[in-house]
Amino acid sequence: MLTKIDQHLLQLINKVNSSLDVETVLNYAMETTEEALQAEASAIFEVDPNRGDLFFRLARGEKADRVKTMRLKMGEGVAGWVAQTGQAVIVPHAEADPRFNPNLDAKSGFHTRSLVSVPLKHQDRLLGVIQVLNKRPPLQFDQEDLELLTLMAQPIAVALANAQAYTQLALVSHQVIKTLSTTVELRDPYTAGHQRRVAQIAVAIAQELGLSQERQESLRIACTLHDIGKIVVPAEILSKPGQINPLEQELVKSHSRVGYEILKEIDFPKEIADIVLQHHERLDGSGYPNGLRGDEISLEARITAVADVMEAMMSHRPYRPGLGVDKALEEIKKERGVELDAAAVDACWLLFEKGFKLE
Amino acid sequence: MLTKIDQHLLQLINKVNSSLDVETVLNYAMETTEEALQAEASAIFEVDPNRGDLFFRLARGEKADRVKTMRLKMGEGVAGWVAQTGQAVIVPHAEADPRFNPNLDAKSGFHTRSLVSVPLKHQDRLLGVIQVLNKRPPLQFDQEDLELLTLMAQPIAVALANAQAYTQLALVSHQVIKTLSTTVELRDPYTAGHQRRVAQIAVAIAQELGLSQERQESLRIACTLHDIGKIVVPAEILSKPGQINPLEQELVKSHSRVGYEILKEIDFPKEIADIVLQHHERLDGSGYPNGLRGDEISLEARITAVADVMEAMMSHRPYRPGLGVDKALEEIKKERGVELDAAAVDACWLLFEKGFKLE
Repeated sequence: MLTKIDQHLLQLINKVNSSLDVETVLNYAMETTEEALQAEASAIFEVDPNRGDLFFRLARGEKADRVKTMRLKMGEGVAGWVAQTGQAVIVPHAEADPRFNPNLDAKSGFHTRSLVSVPLKHQDRLLGVIQVLNKRPPLQFDQEDLELLTLMAQPIAVALANAQAYTQLALVSHQVIKTLSTTVELRDPYTAGHQRRVAQIAVAIAQELGLSQERQESLRIACTLHDIGKIVVPAEILSKPGQINPLEQELVKSHSRVGYEILKEIDFPKEIADIVLQHHERLDGSGYPNGLRGDEISLEARITAVADVMEAMMSHRPYRPGLGVDKALEEIKKERGVELDAAAVDACWLLFEKGFKLE
Repeated sequence: MLTKIDQHLLQLINKVNSSLDVETVLNYAMETTEEALQAEASAIFEVDPNRGDLFFRLARGEKADRVKTMRLKMGEGVAGWVAQTGQAVIVPHAEADPRFNPNLDAKSGFHTRSLVSVPLKHQDRLLGVIQVLNKRPPLQFDQEDLELLTLMAQPIAVALANAQAYTQLALVSHQVIKTLSTTVELRDPYTAGHQRRVAQIAVAIAQELGLSQERQESLRIACTLHDIGKIVVPAEILSKPGQINPLEQELVKSHSRVGYEILKEIDFPKEIADIVLQHHERLDGSGYPNGLRGDEISLEARITAVADVMEAMMSHRPYRPGLGVDKALEEIKKERGVELDAAAVDACWLLFEKGFKLE
């Protein structure tokens, strides 16, 4: 009875091992599962714990794109029945089965002839339902298909559970970083949201310049926290509308190094603390704290400098109104290749020309 | 050739599915692997990317405890050879093999007769080496064992890679929470470290009271951030040594609700924001913001109240020296069953009697 299982299962595990990206993993896994069961389409339904219903985590096959936004209540359709009862099922003739709900087919244009459906469980918790549809004619789904799908559901459930746990933690981590960012800005209400907006501009520039996802993500975090060092600068100095004296200037300037010191205590990718340290360095050596020049400044820090200057000039300040996008773009162009990186300035121009808007 | 693989592999996947805790998963996985290969012991070596060597991620079998702190350089011993070359190997007679390093045996007292060792890879990245030792006599490890171990290494590599990614993210998340905590305390230097110390006392009380790991973890986070709402209170008021007027008092008291509002925007377990909201509620209804009584206050919030009062009295303040542990314990005893939860006060007494020290 287990004759063909070994190869299929091994192939599945191999594919699950090939990526940490859960979308890729699930797609590979279902591709392998379809092949193993000689089926034309497949779907993974995931339980939405907040709404108590099922949504399409993945749909493969003809018309798959059309069902992706549809949802099923518990007990609704075969997948809903499997989720509610926790039982696996073979449906050899969909239209003859009272559990079958023809609405999904009606809306998607897909024609379900037959299906096998099993619950996805991890540590006795129902994660969802996995479904394989339309055995290639003239074959029919049988008991062996059900057993095979039940086995293949296991590594898929592990992948899904891990992905859920990781996604939840990543979400919380992201939110805590955001809270840290807004907390620091509370000391200087005039710049509320500045770091968030700099992050948006900088990441958009990085996209234009073709930086990898990983580098974009590090840049986003660095920009979201680039002024964190200002927590050591007294609030009176930060919010002073007029000129500040040289001593106060030195205190304000210390924020890039202080931010670096704070962030290097966190096991972020190393680049993040470096971006914060260098975000006030200037191409011509006129910046601080180290007066670095040109390539001595990391590309991400050069991008941050452009985004930082751009955002500051666009936005209102207590002592002057915002210059607006066009004027701000003119200003950064004046420093193109002088203080600011030429490619980053060009990318900034390009994206605002294409209609980039701050959220 | 694949005759026995299916069952073993299925069993392995089953066990990997049974827990999200990686220690448990790896231990189960190696238990199953030992059974499949009829071996007496096994080990997982993990690459330490910072030091560039291998450490024991897991050791099972006689004397296993003794090797757990030992490390291997790349190229050192059979595991080091496998890590360096990326090749799998059967060593039928350890003592006759030039790659075999007898030092581990000499230090541990374990006697290695034979072994099979394969690299653990995930997406072409070397994570470590998996090793199975001493085939039960009179059997000898053969090619089939090597193939079986190579297959079984795959789900183990996935589990390890996922665990690494999750652990790294959890570490960063924890550090960002800590940074948020210390950032808020910078506004009031007299209470630097207060939240961290309250978290230590509260978690120790929760341990005494037998709360689950999950509840302890939520409590730890809540205590680490319990005064975050003070960011809306002007620093001058926070650091005022003398009496503050009624209006200022109201402002200070707003911090539990403000903290609640901040934390409920983060997808933490719901309890965390509630603990912060209720940490100034008192058993007899004399607390704020809602004048809750007894069980209306969550157990975690009642624990936090004890830890908060205890820490505040132990520590120095600008306007008075710290009372010391004994005096602080006397003070919370006066409120036992009045303002403060009796069980939490008793547990606090017990743990300081047992020699609990703040780090």
